[in-house]
Amino acid sequence: MKAIHLPLVTHLHHHNLDLTKNRVPMVYAYQDVKTSKKSNRLGEKLPNLLNIQKNVPPPSTHSNWNNIHEDKANTPTMSPKEDISDRWRDIHGIQEWEGLLDPLHPLLRREIVKYGEFAQATYDALDIDSFSEYCGSCMYNSHKLFDKSGLNKSGYKVTKFIYAMSQIDMPQWLERSKLTYTWSKDSNWIGFVAVSDDEESRRIGRRDIVVAWRGTVTPSEWYENMQRKLESIGHMDSKVEHGFLSIYTSKCDSTRYNKSSASEQVMKELKTLVDFYKTKSAEQVSLTITGHSLGGALALLNAYESAANFPKLPISVISFAAPRVGNIAFRDELYQMGVKILRVTVKQDLVPRMPGIVLNESLQKFDDLTGTLEWIYTHVGAELKLDVRSSPYLKRGFNFIGIHMLETYLHLVDGFVSSSSTFRSNAKRDVALVNKACDMLVDELRIPTCWYQLAHKGLECNSYGRWVRPKRDPEDIPSPTGREENTYGF
Amino acid sequence: MKAIHLPLVTHLHHHNLDLTKNRVPMVYAYQDVKTSKKSNRLGEKLPNLLNIQKNVPPPSTHSNWNNIHEDKANTPTMSPKEDISDRWRDIHGIQEWEGLLDPLHPLLRREIVKYGEFAQATYDALDIDSFSEYCGSCMYNSHKLFDKSGLNKSGYKVTKFIYAMSQIDMPQWLERSKLTYTWSKDSNWIGFVAVSDDEESRRIGRRDIVVAWRGTVTPSEWYENMQRKLESIGHMDSKVEHGFLSIYTSKCDSTRYNKSSASEQVMKELKTLVDFYKTKSAEQVSLTITGHSLGGALALLNAYESAANFPKLPISVISFAAPRVGNIAFRDELYQMGVKILRVTVKQDLVPRMPGIVLNESLQKFDDLTGTLEWIYTHVGAELKLDVRSSPYLKRGFNFIGIHMLETYLHLVDGFVSSSSTFRSNAKRDVALVNKACDMLVDELRIPTCWYQLAHKGLECNSYGRWVRPKRDPEDIPSPTGREENTYGF
Repeated sequence: MKAIHLPLVTHLHHHNLDLTKNRVPMVYAYQDVKTSKKSNRLGEKLPNLLNIQKNVPPPSTHSNWNNIHEDKANTPTMSPKEDISDRWRDIHGIQEWEGLLDPLHPLLRREIVKYGEFAQATYDALDIDSFSEYCGSCMYNSHKLFDKSGLNKSGYKVTKFIYAMSQIDMPQWLERSKLTYTWSKDSNWIGFVAVSDDEESRRIGRRDIVVAWRGTVTPSEWYENMQRKLESIGHMDSKVEHGFLSIYTSKCDSTRYNKSSASEQVMKELKTLVDFYKTKSAEQVSLTITGHSLGGALALLNAYESAANFPKLPISVISFAAPRVGNIAFRDELYQMGVKILRVTVKQDLVPRMPGIVLNESLQKFDDLTGTLEWIYTHVGAELKLDVRSSPYLKRGFNFIGIHMLETYLHLVDGFVSSSSTFRSNAKRDVALVNKACDMLVDELRIPTCWYQLAHKGLECNSYGRWVRPKRDPEDIPSPTGREENTYGF
Repeated sequence: MKAIHLPLVTHLHHHNLDLTKNRVPMVYAYQDVKTSKKSNRLGEKLPNLLNIQKNVPPPSTHSNWNNIHEDKANTPTMSPKEDISDRWRDIHGIQEWEGLLDPLHPLLRREIVKYGEFAQATYDALDIDSFSEYCGSCMYNSHKLFDKSGLNKSGYKVTKFIYAMSQIDMPQWLERSKLTYTWSKDSNWIGFVAVSDDEESRRIGRRDIVVAWRGTVTPSEWYENMQRKLESIGHMDSKVEHGFLSIYTSKCDSTRYNKSSASEQVMKELKTLVDFYKTKSAEQVSLTITGHSLGGALALLNAYESAANFPKLPISVISFAAPRVGNIAFRDELYQMGVKILRVTVKQDLVPRMPGIVLNESLQKFDDLTGTLEWIYTHVGAELKLDVRSSPYLKRGFNFIGIHMLETYLHLVDGFVSSSSTFRSNAKRDVALVNKACDMLVDELRIPTCWYQLAHKGLECNSYGRWVRPKRDPEDIPSPTGREENTYGF
């Protein structure tokens, strides 16, 4: 098994706290992390404090960027999909990805990107217009989501949207509308369930159910607010971070979208799908759970619960930039239940080190608490570790948000060959995607920053010549009636 | 004559410099204004230093914003145009706008907005994508400009684009591409000439030639760099600001677009048009020159030169947010030549006070030098003075950029009745336009900030699934051959 518990912080400097003598990190951490919103300042402080930029080489220069740019523009973004029907168990970690990660197996690379793009759709389709009455919802109904997100050829269909409570102990994770009347004051769209169609199922050797969990657009807002308070889950000694569990399990009868919790919604849908495909249709069925950042944490909680409910179902998690979630007992229980977990991380990304790095507000710096916290919060599963410096397309400066972005991760996966080789020269994924919502690409590529947005930010000129926000298509207004109209024919 | 030389700075505080004793402001100003780029800091410092927010009332609240918003969305943005063929000389200042400005005559209001929208088109159509090889040019050819800018019903047609040198003594006024190969390293699109069609000419009582001059997107960058050095113009004692004159008159044989200066380009086109309509066709012809900010300064220089070249042509200037341009002799000569000038200003906008407010870098504050500089730089013409506080749609805080924006001016003109009355309740111009490139509208209107932009910032997904900047339509690539193909039939 690879990298189950690899400390990620070996190059961090310990500051003036001798943590080996001071083993009360929970209390300490809690006191120092206030709930005020200072994500920007945070991002500014990090590079200096963590010496991230040390030994960074100067930007590499391509001999002829213009030609590269032109050539790329006329190349398909993906190779043809290969049949993996007899390899899927390896690809999903039956051997703990032994020998598949470094160098990275091309078939595995392709599948990692596929699942990552499902997670990316939860960002691309999220209404983040704070003047929209639908802020925090998906802009499209579940039938349209993949078409609108460029996933029409993914071979999967969305069956269910999942909503989570927004009024919980992590006050700043959600998208809030500034309006008084909104689709829901209490809930955010937090992910979806999808299932492979017949053709894709033939290619991949089984009926694959996917759950994709959305993270937060600005992770700095929530990791500061993490309570660092472990809470029991299940009947054993397993404990997980209170904030994540709260998002996963909160519900309230007086809400429209969270009369049931995210956990209940997703488990009900999974039961329906597993019953139909596995029990009634006797198909080979797998469950693959994905998510980025906070979504990666939710993926782990969801995998834990699924494994308890579907003991013989092959369950794997492919997470991106996920923070630590639980204690060692939680990790061990996941192993015992046979959940296969692949964590994709970027060396320079700070979020996978959370909890473990704590903002010490009084000293105005970050302290590395992993020496103690790693005994409490631990990572789980195999790790595919990427490095932003491997890509010649990425800027070299420290960019807290940009490095953490899922599109940056997917770009690095696409170019990863092995930890000792350079960026894959025949990587085909569109590099422009990296800059969707950040400023990570070198100028030579001529891609605008934060370019993924609607024309006129969604305003349209009506017949009277006025610029107005068009009414949302009635079929795209979120429905509180529970499950979406099903698209898988029963 | 109204408000020819009204000091605009009566509520400013003098700091620790007694300027009445220290009459060397030219040298002083020059030393303190470095050419470094610090527009952002500048904007932050201003409100405190100038006490702009003093006595600002709390935001007014409409009883029911939602209804107002809905109602507005279904109302045409403009009243039908009225025949002004027997009033146009008054509207263009033959009586120096006596009795027309306060209260503002509705017919004059309508014409001010018309000319302001011509100036606005020079911003809306400017390519400001620094990764575009056409950065600094108009995105469309001259035939398409009005269609693309919502001016297809203006009753005017563009006949000529004007280009100005960018390598001059005001180093930061231009838009620069980050690319090495560009349409022109030396020039920027700086304005256009247009002429009224037959129908509009009948309505307004004459063939109207318009020159619209573009300002800068970020005025803070250039006014810091103004040399505050007066330079002679013409044969008399008239002197004007060196930087403005440099933009207007610079040329260079080795460039593609400025083998002739902006001055020469526009004067040649005006001569062609005046010859055709006035001399050959014996029509009544007028010249109206408009511009915002820097463009207002260029309008004045253009008017001066035009008056010298076309002695009997009725010439008027309608400028918005223009700084001072020249000395008293320049002003007097403009009067003697019969140029009619209407300056539209906003009380809280700092640019019309330039030159006259100087950043004292060593003291980190602004000093009001108008006590001395007004003897050197002087405003000219009648003034229509607006107040951001008059509009219930605008935010109350000091917003250096937002207050200076031309769309803010046009909104305030549209709502202006008189200096003693409230915002016009039946103002019909689309309020959303104000937020095109700033954050000035109250939240209740639900208009995004800086919303005027292309989908995906101009990137398009090509047939290979790649996001690329499409090649510019060949007919929209700027042509260095001098005059555009003419659209007025000779």
